[in-house]
Amino acid sequence: MSAYAKRRRKVRDWLQANGVDAILVTSAANVRYLSGFGGEGMVVIGTDAVLCTDRRYEIEAGAVPGRVKVQLHPGGHLGGVIEALNSTKAKRVAFEAESTLYSSYENLTARLDGIETVPVRGVIEQLRAVKDRTEVDAIRRAAAIMDKSLQQMASCLEPGMTEREVALDLDRATILAGSEGMAFDTIAAFGPSAAHPHAVPGARKLKLGHMVKIDCGARVDGYCSDITRTYIVGTPGDQLRQIYQAVFDAQWAACEAAKPGMNCRDLDAVARDIITQRGFGEQFGHGLGHGVGLQVHELPRVSSRSEDVLKPGMVVTIEPGIYIEGFGGVRIEDTVVITRSGCEPLTLAPKQQLDP
Amino acid sequence: MSAYAKRRRKVRDWLQANGVDAILVTSAANVRYLSGFGGEGMVVIGTDAVLCTDRRYEIEAGAVPGRVKVQLHPGGHLGGVIEALNSTKAKRVAFEAESTLYSSYENLTARLDGIETVPVRGVIEQLRAVKDRTEVDAIRRAAAIMDKSLQQMASCLEPGMTEREVALDLDRATILAGSEGMAFDTIAAFGPSAAHPHAVPGARKLKLGHMVKIDCGARVDGYCSDITRTYIVGTPGDQLRQIYQAVFDAQWAACEAAKPGMNCRDLDAVARDIITQRGFGEQFGHGLGHGVGLQVHELPRVSSRSEDVLKPGMVVTIEPGIYIEGFGGVRIEDTVVITRSGCEPLTLAPKQQLDP
Repeated sequence: MSAYAKRRRKVRDWLQANGVDAILVTSAANVRYLSGFGGEGMVVIGTDAVLCTDRRYEIEAGAVPGRVKVQLHPGGHLGGVIEALNSTKAKRVAFEAESTLYSSYENLTARLDGIETVPVRGVIEQLRAVKDRTEVDAIRRAAAIMDKSLQQMASCLEPGMTEREVALDLDRATILAGSEGMAFDTIAAFGPSAAHPHAVPGARKLKLGHMVKIDCGARVDGYCSDITRTYIVGTPGDQLRQIYQAVFDAQWAACEAAKPGMNCRDLDAVARDIITQRGFGEQFGHGLGHGVGLQVHELPRVSSRSEDVLKPGMVVTIEPGIYIEGFGGVRIEDTVVITRSGCEPLTLAPKQQLDP
Repeated sequence: MSAYAKRRRKVRDWLQANGVDAILVTSAANVRYLSGFGGEGMVVIGTDAVLCTDRRYEIEAGAVPGRVKVQLHPGGHLGGVIEALNSTKAKRVAFEAESTLYSSYENLTARLDGIETVPVRGVIEQLRAVKDRTEVDAIRRAAAIMDKSLQQMASCLEPGMTEREVALDLDRATILAGSEGMAFDTIAAFGPSAAHPHAVPGARKLKLGHMVKIDCGARVDGYCSDITRTYIVGTPGDQLRQIYQAVFDAQWAACEAAKPGMNCRDLDAVARDIITQRGFGEQFGHGLGHGVGLQVHELPRVSSRSEDVLKPGMVVTIEPGIYIEGFGGVRIEDTVVITRSGCEPLTLAPKQQLDP
């Protein structure tokens, strides 16, 4: 049984347990997860699995690894869905409330023939939190491509380069090395710009003594990688040394601690406690990490308020940071996979180590 | 009165004419149109105009040119919307059905206090079809940046380059020249790849005799430009000469014909008739063009089935093409603004002219 068929079997188990006959999947990541199709379309899982898309994707849809029926309907994706559902004996159909537009819901209810619709949330997202071997392998390959171009960029950093140039050159090298695109907009932030966790690369020029925060990810077979490194160009001042070492130590400790059965909020606390002890607790204003897969942010949540528990096969980021307005910031991030006994890093680009 | 205030006045006229007290705007382009805010958020237009966003955008939201009230709510964008609406005397509130998720609709109906919700479609999109001077100016500036980097790229094309390299280098030059990003994924397609209207740049290498189809656009102040040029590297064969000249003539004739009061389907016919006369009618499988603005595809529709009529201030593309599977394709596209008496091209990069 293929990985896709196994995933669909789990969805059918859910259908049966919840008294619905089919589910309409509208989230692009969930469509890909259940069918292998990477274009625009929707999937219906009931007795059959039907991919509803349009003629632009005729060739791609016919060859998807997930072996689904393909419906190319002149009335659009939803037209295909309605025909597929009306031709079955389904009486109750679930749909993804968090990725279905209200206008699609209106069309569905107007045109479905005696079928009740039931909004649901997070059904497929829960399944996606634990990855199978093929998925981990795709993330590993994405991480390897990114590691190489990031390391190459780190060796070229020199005063006078702009943030925008660094980000564009990194993207170019990563895509030419085989990434399907970037997993998200690359962040390259120098000195004071690095104080903003999600800084947009601008015209700022690199100066000696600046920190260079780069957050980037590649994409392979639809799967994302996610890595952050902070490099120091020239000799760091005392404050920068302090915050860099605090983040480095917190990140290392959390990677050492992560293991199956652990509450995600406890993992967050491992890193947060170290940063708080060094006096920067208030400057670490975001959660420790997040799941990574077909989306760059997915389950599990890794934060101080998370209720999630780590399981083997989960892929998460571990990315503490310290941000000081007007001065700058440091973040170090790895993507790791939870193993049977601990975790294994998938991102391997070297981290700068400060001289003692 | 600012451009934003004028737009909101038109929205309030619509509210009054339709018996609703406020409208919830969830489409990112419509939010920007009514407030000037380019981040993630929602806008409520009633007696007041309220922008509901989150702390990430605190600085940007406080400084938007559209001078709106800003609501940063711990319960997210929709939390801000609900508080804003519950604190007014609104009894009936419209929301954008085509950009509001079903889950947001559920939250709204559960938490709005005695307020009826009314799904609506296309209200703001209709207003956006006719541009004011500031908007045309932004598109003109985006087009000028793109013209320059495209022309530079055209002068560097040589055998051995890959489609992916051409696309990446073009993007890089355009962004470094001041574009906020690309308006859409750049298409660079060589030879047989050019047969696909929306080809994705790949590893194909440029050869002598290939056509090079490049479709690209820059972005300035949120506004898109859109241009396609097809260049021939080396000496074209007879078939390529024929289709290039047919597209060139059709595109020129449509640019000459476009004027206010004209039905968009008649403009489509000007180009389509020429291509059909040359024997390639079946190979021109898409509409002649589309409106361009805050989105790269917006109103009016310019196709053989369009019911829209050209008005001064509309900005549309004129982009006939001929696509022959296994051989290749040619498309030539300009973005033009409809004037009082005709149209003016905003994209000015030179088109290759074949020797007679």
